[in-house]
Amino acid sequence: MRIGVLTSGGDCPGLNAVIRSVVHRAVVDHGDEVIGFHDGWKGLLECDYRKLDLDAVGGILARGGTILGSSRVQPAHLRDGVERAKGHVTDLGLDAIIPIGGEGTLKAANLLSEAGLPIVGVPKTIDNDIASTDVTFGFDTAVGVATEALDRLKTTAESHQRVLIVEVMGRHTGWIALHSGMAAGAHAIVVPERPFDIAELTEVVGRRFSDGKKFAIVVVAEGAKPREGSMEFNQGKTDIYGHERFAGVATQLSGELEQRLGKEARPVILGHVQRGGTPTAYDRVLATRFGWHAVEAAHRGEFGMMTALRGTDITMVPLAAAVETLKTVPAERYAEAQVVL
Amino acid sequence: MRIGVLTSGGDCPGLNAVIRSVVHRAVVDHGDEVIGFHDGWKGLLECDYRKLDLDAVGGILARGGTILGSSRVQPAHLRDGVERAKGHVTDLGLDAIIPIGGEGTLKAANLLSEAGLPIVGVPKTIDNDIASTDVTFGFDTAVGVATEALDRLKTTAESHQRVLIVEVMGRHTGWIALHSGMAAGAHAIVVPERPFDIAELTEVVGRRFSDGKKFAIVVVAEGAKPREGSMEFNQGKTDIYGHERFAGVATQLSGELEQRLGKEARPVILGHVQRGGTPTAYDRVLATRFGWHAVEAAHRGEFGMMTALRGTDITMVPLAAAVETLKTVPAERYAEAQVVL
Amino acid sequence: MRIGVLTSGGDCPGLNAVIRSVVHRAVVDHGDEVIGFHDGWKGLLECDYRKLDLDAVGGILARGGTILGSSRVQPAHLRDGVERAKGHVTDLGLDAIIPIGGEGTLKAANLLSEAGLPIVGVPKTIDNDIASTDVTFGFDTAVGVATEALDRLKTTAESHQRVLIVEVMGRHTGWIALHSGMAAGAHAIVVPERPFDIAELTEVVGRRFSDGKKFAIVVVAEGAKPREGSMEFNQGKTDIYGHERFAGVATQLSGELEQRLGKEARPVILGHVQRGGTPTAYDRVLATRFGWHAVEAAHRGEFGMMTALRGTDITMVPLAAAVETLKTVPAERYAEAQVVL
Amino acid sequence: MRIGVLTSGGDCPGLNAVIRSVVHRAVVDHGDEVIGFHDGWKGLLECDYRKLDLDAVGGILARGGTILGSSRVQPAHLRDGVERAKGHVTDLGLDAIIPIGGEGTLKAANLLSEAGLPIVGVPKTIDNDIASTDVTFGFDTAVGVATEALDRLKTTAESHQRVLIVEVMGRHTGWIALHSGMAAGAHAIVVPERPFDIAELTEVVGRRFSDGKKFAIVVVAEGAKPREGSMEFNQGKTDIYGHERFAGVATQLSGELEQRLGKEARPVILGHVQRGGTPTAYDRVLATRFGWHAVEAAHRGEFGMMTALRGTDITMVPLAAAVETLKTVPAERYAEAQVVL
Repeated sequence: MRIGVLTSGGDCPGLNAVIRSVVHRAVVDHGDEVIGFHDGWKGLLECDYRKLDLDAVGGILARGGTILGSSRVQPAHLRDGVERAKGHVTDLGLDAIIPIGGEGTLKAANLLSEAGLPIVGVPKTIDNDIASTDVTFGFDTAVGVATEALDRLKTTAESHQRVLIVEVMGRHTGWIALHSGMAAGAHAIVVPERPFDIAELTEVVGRRFSDGKKFAIVVVAEGAKPREGSMEFNQGKTDIYGHERFAGVATQLSGELEQRLGKEARPVILGHVQRGGTPTAYDRVLATRFGWHAVEAAHRGEFGMMTALRGTDITMVPLAAAVETLKTVPAERYAEAQVVL
Repeated sequence: MRIGVLTSGGDCPGLNAVIRSVVHRAVVDHGDEVIGFHDGWKGLLECDYRKLDLDAVGGILARGGTILGSSRVQPAHLRDGVERAKGHVTDLGLDAIIPIGGEGTLKAANLLSEAGLPIVGVPKTIDNDIASTDVTFGFDTAVGVATEALDRLKTTAESHQRVLIVEVMGRHTGWIALHSGMAAGAHAIVVPERPFDIAELTEVVGRRFSDGKKFAIVVVAEGAKPREGSMEFNQGKTDIYGHERFAGVATQLSGELEQRLGKEARPVILGHVQRGGTPTAYDRVLATRFGWHAVEAAHRGEFGMMTALRGTDITMVPLAAAVETLKTVPAERYAEAQVVL
Repeated sequence: MRIGVLTSGGDCPGLNAVIRSVVHRAVVDHGDEVIGFHDGWKGLLECDYRKLDLDAVGGILARGGTILGSSRVQPAHLRDGVERAKGHVTDLGLDAIIPIGGEGTLKAANLLSEAGLPIVGVPKTIDNDIASTDVTFGFDTAVGVATEALDRLKTTAESHQRVLIVEVMGRHTGWIALHSGMAAGAHAIVVPERPFDIAELTEVVGRRFSDGKKFAIVVVAEGAKPREGSMEFNQGKTDIYGHERFAGVATQLSGELEQRLGKEARPVILGHVQRGGTPTAYDRVLATRFGWHAVEAAHRGEFGMMTALRGTDITMVPLAAAVETLKTVPAERYAEAQVVL
Repeated sequence: MRIGVLTSGGDCPGLNAVIRSVVHRAVVDHGDEVIGFHDGWKGLLECDYRKLDLDAVGGILARGGTILGSSRVQPAHLRDGVERAKGHVTDLGLDAIIPIGGEGTLKAANLLSEAGLPIVGVPKTIDNDIASTDVTFGFDTAVGVATEALDRLKTTAESHQRVLIVEVMGRHTGWIALHSGMAAGAHAIVVPERPFDIAELTEVVGRRFSDGKKFAIVVVAEGAKPREGSMEFNQGKTDIYGHERFAGVATQLSGELEQRLGKEARPVILGHVQRGGTPTAYDRVLATRFGWHAVEAAHRGEFGMMTALRGTDITMVPLAAAVETLKTVPAERYAEAQVVL
């Protein structure tokens, strides 16, 4: 068999582990040939690739990033992308393509699959917002990094007697905020799924101080927004240079809470550090299993599917179903955390 | 409601997170009273306990160990244990007891439950060998610690051109060996579920050297044994002081491989470091959820059950069923790792 | 002897280790009594303190923050502070006061010392800018945290093919930037000691891309500024809420570099995470030694001095000399890093 | 200039950082050529080497081990080694050789230097036992790894109510034991410099239990020995396979303490994990500076010297002096730790 693999979208710890696993399973166990396209779909569209043998994937299991590079170019955005992709697949004699990526990538994968290409997807997202799989690799590492930062920030907040508003990733869902907030014992967690009421948040934080505590930690997902009319809020999030993170939700919340509480409040924006670097053991194992099962699915001819974790099993689910809905934090999970607004 | 909580058996990262969560849910949300028995079942039998309020569990979420202490004394081993326990429960007016522990603890819990005590168990094991739950807290931390050690040992094995035989925990099951071995890219993984053939292991490791590699890492669970007749093997594992770890499987394997391969081989025994210290974010979240749901079960009157993770949900399963069988590594998981003997 | 100890100024990993060491040395070895003032100088001025015995400092060695609390109130700023402090010292029968703090704290300590109080200072600063000591505790932890973040960011920068501008602490000196930049192999390091030329920085970063590399990491100290006339620069650094970190140097640099290079550039501001949490082993050892020697100096009657590291020895240096000048990065250190502008 | 570099002796975090720094300084700043000999002195004797350019050292700064390999073969042990080495140096047109290694390596380097070869040494040792330099790279990482393990073991010792005897590296000196023991707050530290009295150790540990504590942590350097006649002690430390670590000091101490105290005691042997893996930021910076200054010394023609850290400066010291004596822990450092026997 001849298999093409590519990584697309934002960085995510575990990408290299999937690539390595695909090569190990395909080359060693099946005697397949594997090529890796450079820079995501772009590599497929421009037929830019290299051969991947065991040496090529030596030592990459624990390394962050992707040895294949990534990009955000997607066939769906290119008029003639699908036909060119099909042409290259035929020319290269590929029997299967394994794209590793997030929601956008999987949508593109579904498109190509419906156009007849032999696709087996591998879902990737630090945000944990892909439906049909319990979780994907990258999320555990992101939560771990955020939790370690929160552990550190707690002592500083306490020493400085401040409120720290810590912004974690999650544009549409609050998974990282929920898990890191629970893991670090945050005093309030604010998620995009539930527009927050600034008065309520002020009260929750203020209660800590009236209870004699000297600090508070609020974890807020970057995509969180106040309830309509609750406070003035700059949705733009762009600065004069077009950067998105300028005066994001943590900065605005911090100013507002400081005024309302009369306590020093400071924003901390964790940023990209959540999506890079060496994956946790959990993510390495999951990524390795996904790679292994993607190769198996290709050999069974199960195309148009993606790997998924269900309980402790890896199963295959239709790409179409997987990208239909965003997996948001269900209400019962808020209750468990006690401190989600 | 009046709830008693206790921790029993070996150390496990996340115990404190469960205790804290029980107190938070019970005291804050339900207005319950919570007491903690000291040193496991011993505290229940000797009526040795203290009140647990919010202050008592402040700052313990990320701390290893257990603020309540632990011991290996189990009612099952004490003739009159059951009656004394029942007496104390009545005297203290307890509506529920939440024991947090491993296989032995849960068996004892089941016994007490059958004797009529209102028990809600919380499973704990770094070994991941408790059936009826996908996983319990402690395992992720143990695997993380072992993986970090393996990452470090790899560079040393390579620089020294050696075979390193790394012994990880797992007396009856190979879960930690499997996951840490996969996560770190070990070259062979040896588990208790499959007695190993020393000739086969020698060949696997030897092949690396004949392929031009200069080192090899073998991960072996402490409970692994050679296939009958495969090599001389000292089952005793006790030294003159009665210590169990003296000349365990890694040490014996290391000597044997050195002789057979003609390459330097060294044992490394990770030991207790795998079961102590701060839990990973994963384990903190799981432990917190278990504590929360144990309190809920108590309030619903669901006794004789224990919390369990199934996929992303926390469910309740009968204690009796949970302790019936040991959860061993299924054969298909060996295949995924490629390098399990 | 009766000794008072206090911590003042910003959070710094190792404060608790000093407190613990002072108590251990004084109480166990000398039979002294130790009290701890709350919230820095404020505690001395308001006579707010508690007794510190061995139990009070149990388990705090590895913990970030300070069990005594801190504040920025300094006697120097209070008209009648000196006299009130003297009064309390007499009332409490204190034979020595050990303030642990940074430049401001040590200046205040010097003032009080000149006014006749028996002061032995312990220098603290994550910034490494206190003269007369090779280094103080806190710096190693801060550099470690920044380096770990940079390690992670590298893989993301590479995957995303971006320039990341990472802002680390250092308002007046570039020590954290220099050390973390060297440790992580940054491609340019920008420090306050040398106003940067934006054209030069653009060229350095641009050269990486023309050399075929796909990303660059620039480490910039928060206090770095462009050379006069080099680029438009907002010195204010305050937002509408009076927060200082809004549109700091990394954000401005990032916008400017993006325009000049035509490459995506993004700011990452590490922030408070550098000054909290558990100290490195290095900082714990240094902090412990400082505490030990501060007690010894008190017993020898060496007042008006502070502990200092010189090579591998702890020595005592005059407070007056220590706070005279800021320790900036010497020019020869730039050369070693190769990439300091 | 043409420079040869090699790494010799045991693994040590920071070796790659030195190699990288030598290449960066020599190639980029001086326009030199650099070659790397494989497997230590063996590569020089067998003229086995490869060219090292910037690409060859890309991405190795944070990686443990050595890309050049290492071995324990030393010219001093080979009759005709010196002449062959000289011949290869002439043939290859080398102007300088930079060996990076420990005591044995530096002795060999001194020998070759006295025989007329242009040597600039770089000291390496995780044990911190090389005189003439405040510290070398590798030590900080080893102490960090040991401290992290001790932090974890503390919670387990406490939960299990045990004495844990933790064996760290240090055959001749107790530096790692001292620093990790101080950093983790060990209750006793046993070093090779001071043969211990078992009765005294038993008393120190026993006092903790009589003070109401439930556990104790003893850190012991692998080379520690009991005072003559203090207890039976097996000096051999070799098992039937010729392995050295079998029943080392921790195992023997553990058995002895268990009997004398009547408390469970367990040995934990940290082993190789202390000498591998990614270096701390501290070690990376020091290693980078050493590499830089070694190249500078070569360009100044300062041969027969090695790099050394003195305070915050890198200086050059004669190889001859550096290897004369072993740097042991001075008595005043025991006092600071309070718990060194």
